[in-house]
Amino acid sequence: MEKYRGLSPAEFFHRNREMAGFSNPVRALYQTVRELVENALDATETHGILPDIKVEIELVEGRENWVRVTVADNGIGIPLTEVPNVFGRVFYGSKYVIRQTRGTFGLGGKMAVLHAQITTAQPFYVKSSTMDSPAVYEYRLYIDISRNIPHIVGFRLKRKGRSKWHGTVVSLVTEGAWNLARRRIDEYIRRTALIAPYATIVYRTPEGEVVYERASKKLPEPPQVGKHHPRGVDIEILKNLIRSLSEDMPLKDFLRKYFESVGEKSAIDFLKWANLDPETPVKSLRIKDLERLANAMKRYEKWRRPRPVTLSPLGAELLKEGAKRILEPEFVEAVTRQPASYGGHPFIVEAAIAYGGKIEPQNSPLLLRFANRMPLLYDEGADVSRKIVDSIDWSVYKVKFPAPLAVITHVCSTKLPFKSVGKEAIADVPEVERELEIAVREVARKLRLYLSKMEKLHEVKRKELTIKRYIPEVSRSLSYVTGIEEAVLRRKLEELLEKEIKKRGVVANAPVIQAA
Amino acid sequence: MEKYRGLSPAEFFHRNREMAGFSNPVRALYQTVRELVENALDATETHGILPDIKVEIELVEGRENWVRVTVADNGIGIPLTEVPNVFGRVFYGSKYVIRQTRGTFGLGGKMAVLHAQITTAQPFYVKSSTMDSPAVYEYRLYIDISRNIPHIVGFRLKRKGRSKWHGTVVSLVTEGAWNLARRRIDEYIRRTALIAPYATIVYRTPEGEVVYERASKKLPEPPQVGKHHPRGVDIEILKNLIRSLSEDMPLKDFLRKYFESVGEKSAIDFLKWANLDPETPVKSLRIKDLERLANAMKRYEKWRRPRPVTLSPLGAELLKEGAKRILEPEFVEAVTRQPASYGGHPFIVEAAIAYGGKIEPQNSPLLLRFANRMPLLYDEGADVSRKIVDSIDWSVYKVKFPAPLAVITHVCSTKLPFKSVGKEAIADVPEVERELEIAVREVARKLRLYLSKMEKLHEVKRKELTIKRYIPEVSRSLSYVTGIEEAVLRRKLEELLEKEIKKRGVVANAPVIQAA
Repeated sequence: MEKYRGLSPAEFFHRNREMAGFSNPVRALYQTVRELVENALDATETHGILPDIKVEIELVEGRENWVRVTVADNGIGIPLTEVPNVFGRVFYGSKYVIRQTRGTFGLGGKMAVLHAQITTAQPFYVKSSTMDSPAVYEYRLYIDISRNIPHIVGFRLKRKGRSKWHGTVVSLVTEGAWNLARRRIDEYIRRTALIAPYATIVYRTPEGEVVYERASKKLPEPPQVGKHHPRGVDIEILKNLIRSLSEDMPLKDFLRKYFESVGEKSAIDFLKWANLDPETPVKSLRIKDLERLANAMKRYEKWRRPRPVTLSPLGAELLKEGAKRILEPEFVEAVTRQPASYGGHPFIVEAAIAYGGKIEPQNSPLLLRFANRMPLLYDEGADVSRKIVDSIDWSVYKVKFPAPLAVITHVCSTKLPFKSVGKEAIADVPEVERELEIAVREVARKLRLYLSKMEKLHEVKRKELTIKRYIPEVSRSLSYVTGIEEAVLRRKLEELLEKEIKKRGVVANAPVIQAA
Repeated sequence: MEKYRGLSPAEFFHRNREMAGFSNPVRALYQTVRELVENALDATETHGILPDIKVEIELVEGRENWVRVTVADNGIGIPLTEVPNVFGRVFYGSKYVIRQTRGTFGLGGKMAVLHAQITTAQPFYVKSSTMDSPAVYEYRLYIDISRNIPHIVGFRLKRKGRSKWHGTVVSLVTEGAWNLARRRIDEYIRRTALIAPYATIVYRTPEGEVVYERASKKLPEPPQVGKHHPRGVDIEILKNLIRSLSEDMPLKDFLRKYFESVGEKSAIDFLKWANLDPETPVKSLRIKDLERLANAMKRYEKWRRPRPVTLSPLGAELLKEGAKRILEPEFVEAVTRQPASYGGHPFIVEAAIAYGGKIEPQNSPLLLRFANRMPLLYDEGADVSRKIVDSIDWSVYKVKFPAPLAVITHVCSTKLPFKSVGKEAIADVPEVERELEIAVREVARKLRLYLSKMEKLHEVKRKELTIKRYIPEVSRSLSYVTGIEEAVLRRKLEELLEKEIKKRGVVANAPVIQAA
């Protein structure tokens, strides 16, 4: 006889923790650091605060593979009453809105503490204070896994007094293989510092302290909380929006008020096209009508692209800077695409291409992936960017392998289509795939121009050398025939050669750093 | 001001459906068929019933990309009162026990109906009857996503009368790109039929009907429901087991009764080693004690390996048969490893290697992955098997690329460490990785023997041909010297050559199908 039962979300992820990136003591330690650092960055830069992040890794004496991980930020803090749920309840958080953040699942921080709890049985520690709170509060907590609720084992409240501290500190003891995870974690912190040059990150480990000082005080425009884009909403989204309305309204107003990039006129134009009455009260719509509405919204081709206010891309310049610092190439180009959307979620794709210099020649392009400013280090084989890079015939762009070629991709979105809650690989959603391909091909074309130019340069230089070899002989003969001094003729011929080379638009021997 | 809220599991997977494999209309249709077929196989073979499965794909007229998918089985059926939850509540099911099944998450079937619901707004249909039920019941259902509960829109009950029908039929209308998904779905069904030769599968599509008749009536021994293995349990598992005890008991009895492969003696030996009192009542253990106990259980090296009763591997013979049928190679070898365990979950690894014949030479080994008898067609790049196959230096095994080499891996477990709920890639859990590597290297060594033998054979054949070329000349000369008839001498010499070749253990011209 089969027994049927339900699982709590915490139980589900306890059983299936490898899905969230906690598959072994190496990966688990990497993932723990990553989740806490990403929460710290979200708590600061998303709210216009220049991030000051401290990451500390300590080995616990006398316990094999026990590691204390502490991450502190100067962010907006978590309200007193929300702390237990934010860390102790799976699928709970403040990031279930339409806005670009690193975290979105309400799961990562919980998985880190859940892993700590099941491997070392130590409660975790949270200290926090919001900007307007008069107190700093400290918690020691467990997760009650089978009920998916937090269990408080310690609590303390202190008046702030003159201190204006706000932010969050999380500290936990988890099982992790520091020696084996160290290289990846170092690399993760390094790439994070490069993609967030406005952050100061103090990184303290048993091996010593590294400080990444902020290189710039210019914070990119923080993303705003936005609305759904009409293209690609589904019936469920419409149902939820309508249910949450406190008062009924005509369809045309509903579209204008609750959707991105829809004005009075575009709402009416669309409804005419869809053969729907603009004055229908939305609360009177039935499932069949919603299905028709959702279908029409998805197919209508005249919606404006979503405004990028919910997004915060890096920009081509910063991406190029990053690529130069990480890779020290001879050539680099970057592009930021216009915003697009899939399933009602706006996204922006950025890509860069780097060539030569310190990049090691390889049989396929080196790929560096970023998503919402997070470096992605694992599962490249499953990522849509790899799929695109591998599907491109690079000979079209004059690349001959082995080549010193690196491709960098950055996808920002209010909802990244990750393949797993471990946030390592982006799925091949057709709209994202298309934008990525266009972006990579765009920078690849610039590489082709550069490589053609280099080819021409080499060709001209080869000719120049050949001609130069004959100048002495020719000047001697001419001198014999004309009676003009050989040195004069030689100088004239050399000037002529130089002029011809200049005409071809290349300056011999000048360093070529970047395409025009 | 940040707004905090919780999500229901159904809402979470509605927002993140690409995680469950529903990333686009092609993949979604593939995943829908897959989830329903795997549920059908679980409902039959796991319970000792020879599967009769019907899969039907129909295009819905007048609706672009609307596809009706219907899957019927002759399985054990779902009890009347459980049907709504089994299909309409995420994280609910009968497979949260220790036993090898294809499904384990309580999620796949729900994701298929959830995707149907949000793309076409059609309710889904379920008909079922258990063996001992006097009635057949039919439901039409929705999922209430924000509350994660089923919503019944239609119900009908019929007396079975003389019919003894039992089983389940699921039918839904979903958005899917049949033309683009077709090749993958065909391939999925084909590979399923090959890995489950005891099943009859009727596969009806707009292109026609294919019937895979069962090749054998021999069902592999069905897996039994088992207990946790002591190696690798965690505090949470201990806590849950102890909480569910109706009465207290001494630690030694607890270990013996609730863990796999633990007897009276091994329980006491272990507790002595761990410096724990065998008579301590388990209900008196505190968190600190549980942590100590869990840690000791994980480290103790003398536990017996888990018995494989919860598992149902294919066996080397069947795996070889499968490989022969799919690949038609010149050489094939397979191995089934002894059971092992990770994190308290037993698993068995099987591997096969095939070479030559109809396998196309490629620059790296072709990899065919199976897990709990499910073919895995996507995300190969993220799979631990790919990692291992790529890390092996194949020249050690005398393979020179491009080579006609295929590696087949099959992992069976009561809990497969999938990287995502889409069940396509297995994570690199160290224990599984190790077993896979040993298995692949074991069959690779047999391949080396075979390739060495082939090399020798070619060498001997080359010599044979050289010698044969001189026999007429030599016999002629010998005949002249000795006066013996030339034909007699020639026959003698040929016999001598044949004998010598046989001594070297190779039969010239005999077909070499398999290593010794």
